[in-house]
Formats: sequence, structure tokens, C-alpha cells
Amino acid sequence: MKLNRRDFSRLSALAALAGAFPTVDAQNESETSGRKFRWCIVGLGRISMGHFMPAVELSKTGKITALVSGHREKAEKQAAMYNVASPSIYSYETYDEIAQNKEIDGVYIALPNSMHAEYTIRAAKAGKHVLCEKPMATSVADCRAMIDACQKHHVRLMIAYRCQYNPLHLKAIDLIRTGAIGQVQVIESAFGFPIQPGEWRLNKKMAGGGPLMDVGVYSLNACRYLTGEEPSDIKANASTIDHDGRFDEVEENDGWTMKFPSGILASCATTYGGDTGGGGFFKVHGSKGWIALEPAFPYQGKHLAARLGDGQDLDMPEPDKDPWDFVRQADHLAECVWSNKEPKTPGEEGLRDTQVMSQIYQSAGLKGL
Amino acid sequence: MKLNRRDFSRLSALAALAGAFPTVDAQNESETSGRKFRWCIVGLGRISMGHFMPAVELSKTGKITALVSGHREKAEKQAAMYNVASPSIYSYETYDEIAQNKEIDGVYIALPNSMHAEYTIRAAKAGKHVLCEKPMATSVADCRAMIDACQKHHVRLMIAYRCQYNPLHLKAIDLIRTGAIGQVQVIESAFGFPIQPGEWRLNKKMAGGGPLMDVGVYSLNACRYLTGEEPSDIKANASTIDHDGRFDEVEENDGWTMKFPSGILASCATTYGGDTGGGGFFKVHGSKGWIALEPAFPYQGKHLAARLGDGQDLDMPEPDKDPWDFVRQADHLAECVWSNKEPKTPGEEGLRDTQVMSQIYQSAGLKGL
Repeated sequence: MKLNRRDFSRLSALAALAGAFPTVDAQNESETSGRKFRWCIVGLGRISMGHFMPAVELSKTGKITALVSGHREKAEKQAAMYNVASPSIYSYETYDEIAQNKEIDGVYIALPNSMHAEYTIRAAKAGKHVLCEKPMATSVADCRAMIDACQKHHVRLMIAYRCQYNPLHLKAIDLIRTGAIGQVQVIESAFGFPIQPGEWRLNKKMAGGGPLMDVGVYSLNACRYLTGEEPSDIKANASTIDHDGRFDEVEENDGWTMKFPSGILASCATTYGGDTGGGGFFKVHGSKGWIALEPAFPYQGKHLAARLGDGQDLDMPEPDKDPWDFVRQADHLAECVWSNKEPKTPGEEGLRDTQVMSQIYQSAGLKGL
Repeated sequence: MKLNRRDFSRLSALAALAGAFPTVDAQNESETSGRKFRWCIVGLGRISMGHFMPAVELSKTGKITALVSGHREKAEKQAAMYNVASPSIYSYETYDEIAQNKEIDGVYIALPNSMHAEYTIRAAKAGKHVLCEKPMATSVADCRAMIDACQKHHVRLMIAYRCQYNPLHLKAIDLIRTGAIGQVQVIESAFGFPIQPGEWRLNKKMAGGGPLMDVGVYSLNACRYLTGEEPSDIKANASTIDHDGRFDEVEENDGWTMKFPSGILASCATTYGGDTGGGGFFKVHGSKGWIALEPAFPYQGKHLAARLGDGQDLDMPEPDKDPWDFVRQADHLAECVWSNKEPKTPGEEGLRDTQVMSQIYQSAGLKGL
């Protein structure tokens, strides 16, 4: 029997429901069936309105069908832009009612860090899949509770580590895995920016910590996916230089070194007081060459350079512009749900980073997470 | 009374002899008087023959008048090239006889690290000034003994930190000191290369340690002169990945983080197993901009880029080629001796780096220096 594309697609959708068929591709699925993953956007801040929501519009798999916001007027404006029906605009108080909304498949959580756990768990109880922004949560216990809730309620949990869906980051990983720069020995990475006063990121309760939670986590996560290993010896310093009120609750700078089981060492820094060129960097030094992604973590304009063991030099500016990493993330969760797969960046990925960040803070003499 | 240049020069030379006149410039002095600082080269390896000796020839202040080597034939070849008289060729056994050679003002010591102390102290006893290659020595105690001997015998001791005489490094320091990038917050730096088997640098007794001693010291020294501060909290990891015989005695990789009294954090790495692009780098992140020197530490081809607080972008490839940093070093010691000044990179500078390297090793679980 030869299946045509439509048959295959239909079959896969059925199989996905049965939790047994792992292969269907979300874009193909959506193209052929017109099926959409219906998103409820939780939190209407810069990243939602400026990045994720336009990305869903651009994606072939997604559609925005609901909004959650504390600002009704702002929500109504966005609802008009995305054709969201008025009854599908929720407040934080009415959030649990999404359970009754059959037009929602999953939620995108872009709230202050400390709220990620509660709103993920409430989504899980409502039977909705979750894409949660990084950092996953402000404590290791919260991360575990999020994972447990999603497991219990049979919904997928994905952490929005957008760089793991970016072609240049994937290229760096591929070069390393295929031995193009030989054995990796040391990695350096940094990411930071001078923060403005008044941001919730400077509130310890809401943010959980300083630049490590917000931007340092990119360097940490990169070191983990570049090596494919979990760090063991974690040693760190933290400091605050500017006593201008911004850093009354969280630290201004973190510097840390990590050792991986293979012996690879990583030295990283993050700052809320210094300019790292708008997007940070990482450099990977192997026995036969090196890879530099610089800038590494901005929404757009990433640039990969490398010298490979075969003498080849790579110079790859990012071919795409924002919001393609966000589109890929949205597509990925849809694909995972439809094909009953675990997302590439599940809750466990966020848990591991949170555990390491906790160790970084403890080594620096601060309170762990 | 108005002095002409010749009068001034003569006066300064006399004053310098009296140890009282601090202002004369070595190049002017030498140009007008024809006076030369007469160098005895101790150790005929790559750095002497390939860099320092040609540099002395190019300098206006210096002249090579003696050689010390264990290889008579090699020494005779070099002696012929530099018009060194045959009686001024010494072996390590006859080295102390330089005391009787009035045609020697100072020695340049380019021996394996563990020999720096002995040959500096013997030079001091012979009444000769010393320019000693980095790292200063393989133990803190040796550094102190070198400083004491040079003080006791009234000779100058300078450590060959060539980057502190390089215009791009000096430009970076100047930009920081004049506030061009605001308050420095974090620094990253790395330097390393894949070492070939058989090098004395892999012998623990001769080298004192692995890449930290040899190339990591550039990053460490840079962090100290960029901040103008001494690090306090020093935390480190070390590792060996390649068990191919090269690293039976010394470590392959080091990663460390340092905190400076102002709160500036530095994260660094060094490797004998990985390619850092031929010359390593440093990046300085300030509240209003950044400076990147990349490559930072090669003999030639350094490149400074910066974004300053006033919106200006700098892009400065190294204007000079090797051996100018070496020329400047040779000139500097001559100037210091003639004008009775302490060199900019005295023994104490090497002692401080050695103390920090000792702490790095201890933090990494290795034996201190």
C-alpha cells in the first residue's frame, strides 16, 4: 500500500492521538490539514507583543485564540489585531477558565520569572500544553512542581530556549559533534546589558536573582548544549559596583567557571551594568580549530565564525531575521503535541539550568534557588 | 641658563650616574650620546633568536655584547651575526664570569621558567641589571629571592611583560582610565594553543605548571593592568582531557574567575589543548561601552575594537609589526637604568602574578607555587 501525503497526514494525526506515531512533521501536517495549534498568550509584555505573537502569525502551525492580561484595554487592542474573540480574553483571576475553552491547545507564558510556576501549573490543571519563557522558575522546587503538574495532567511542557532552535547555534553544535574543531577544551561566554531602573527584573521576589537568571542563563545553557554534558565543579563570584538603587535587591555581576565530566572547562560572565555588545558571545576552543558566535544571543544579527580542522574558515552572518527563532519554537511545540513527542527543551532542561544557577549563587556566597 | 640638547643629555647622563635625575629619555639619550645599553643574552631559544636579539639591533639604545648558551656552536653562529667577541660567549658554568665583563650592562633571561630565579640572582651578584622573561619564576619564594637579590646588589629587575609596552594594550588601559567606556563591570580573556609533545613546557619541574604559567599569565596580567587592581576572590578549575602523554606532568586546561576590590569580575581560560585563534583575546565590558582586543597577545597582528560611551566606534589593527614590543622593552630597561627609575614591570609585578597563579592552582585542587 502506498500512502499519499494526505493519507499519511491523516494517519499520523490519528496515531499521534493514540500516542504511538512519532514521525509527522508539524509544518507538513499543518499545510496539508489546515490544522492549527491554538495559543493562549499569558502576559502581554515586550516579548509577547514584539516577538512571540507576530511569530505565531507567521508560523504555519499556530494561531492566537486567547489572551491573558491584567490590562483589559491593552488586551482588547491585541485581541483586535489577532482576531481573538472577546470571551477569550482572560484576567489573571479568570485564568483557570481556559479549561473550558476548547479553542485553546496551549499557553505561552511570558510573565515575571516568579509567576512561571503558578501559571504553568494552572495551565496544566486546565489541560493545556505549556511553552514557558526562560528562566523556567525562581527555585528548583518550583521547576520540579511544574514538571510534576504537567506530567500528572498529561500536557507537554517546553521551555523557550530559543537559541536551541536557531540555525547558527545548531550549526555550532553540529560542528562540534562531527569533530570539525577536534576535541573541545575550553569555552568562554558572556552576555549582559546596562539595565534601566524600575524593571521588575531588579525585584528579587519577581526575578529570583540578577543578570544570571535573565541573560547569564543563555551562556550557561549554551555551555551545556555545546558540550552535551552537565557541569560538575561550579565556582563563582558575584558583585555589585553601582550603588544607585538599581541593585538593592539583586546582584549586578556574576562570573563563574564550570568543569564538565569530559574535562571541558567553561568560563562565563554576565552583567546588568556592562555592555556586552548588544548580544553577548561564546567561543569554543578545540584541538583543531575554534568557533565564535558573536553576537550569540540577540534576537537577530547573530554571526558565526569558525576555523575548522580541515583549514576551512567559516563566516556565517544570520540569514534570517527575527522572529524566525520564535516561529520555530511555536512550530516545535505544535509538532511535539501532534506527534506525541517530548519537546527538545522540556522542563528538565530548565530544571538543570536552575540547579546550576543555584550552585553558582551558592558558590558566590549568595542564597541558592 | 638655556641648555641645548647636547648639554641636557650630558647633564642627564651624569645625573643618572648620581642616581638623582629621573627625566632623561632613553632614545634621546642614546641618539645624542651614542651611548648603548650592552646586553648579555642568556639562553638562545626561539624568543631570543627570533625576537629579542633582532629587536635590540633595531633599538637605538641597545647592543648585544655577550651570549650565554649550553651550545657553543649555536652561540658562535649568533656571535658572528651580532659581532659578539669570542671571549664574551659564556656557558652556564662560566656564567658568573660576566661580573668581570665591563662590556655588559644587563642580561636578558630567556630560559625555562624554573631557571629564571637562579640566573637572575647570579646576574645580580655579578652586578648586572636583569630583564627576565615571564613567568617570573616557578614559586613565590623564588620571586621574592630574585627581588631581594636585585635590591641587595643595586641592579634593576624588570619582567618582560611585553604587552604592557604595546600601544594597543596601552590604548585599552587609557580608554578605561579616562572613562571612555564608563565603569568597567566584567572582563573575559583566554589564551592558549595546542602544544606539541616534547616541549620543556610540559615538564613540571622546568615549567612549574601548565598553560596558566605560559599563556594564561597574559590574561591574568591583562586583567590586573586593565583594572589597575589586585584580585581578591580567586576560584578555579583545572583539567586534562588528552591522555596522550603530553600532560603526564602538567594540566591541560585552566578556567578561573576573579573578583577585584571595586567589584569588577574577570572570567578567564587557558589551554594547551585548544586553539584560541593564534593570539587569545580580552573583552572589557563597561557601563557605557566595551573594548575587545582580539587577537590580544600574539607577537604581531593585534586588533583593537571598541564602542565608546560617546557613540564612537574604534577599529585599530596593530600599526607596528614584531619586533617593536621587544624593542620598547629593551629601551625601557635602558632608560630606567640610565635615569635611575624603577621599571614599569618590576619584580613585584611578576611576584603578584605568581601569587595569584598559586591561588588559582590551589583553588583548582592542584599544588600551589
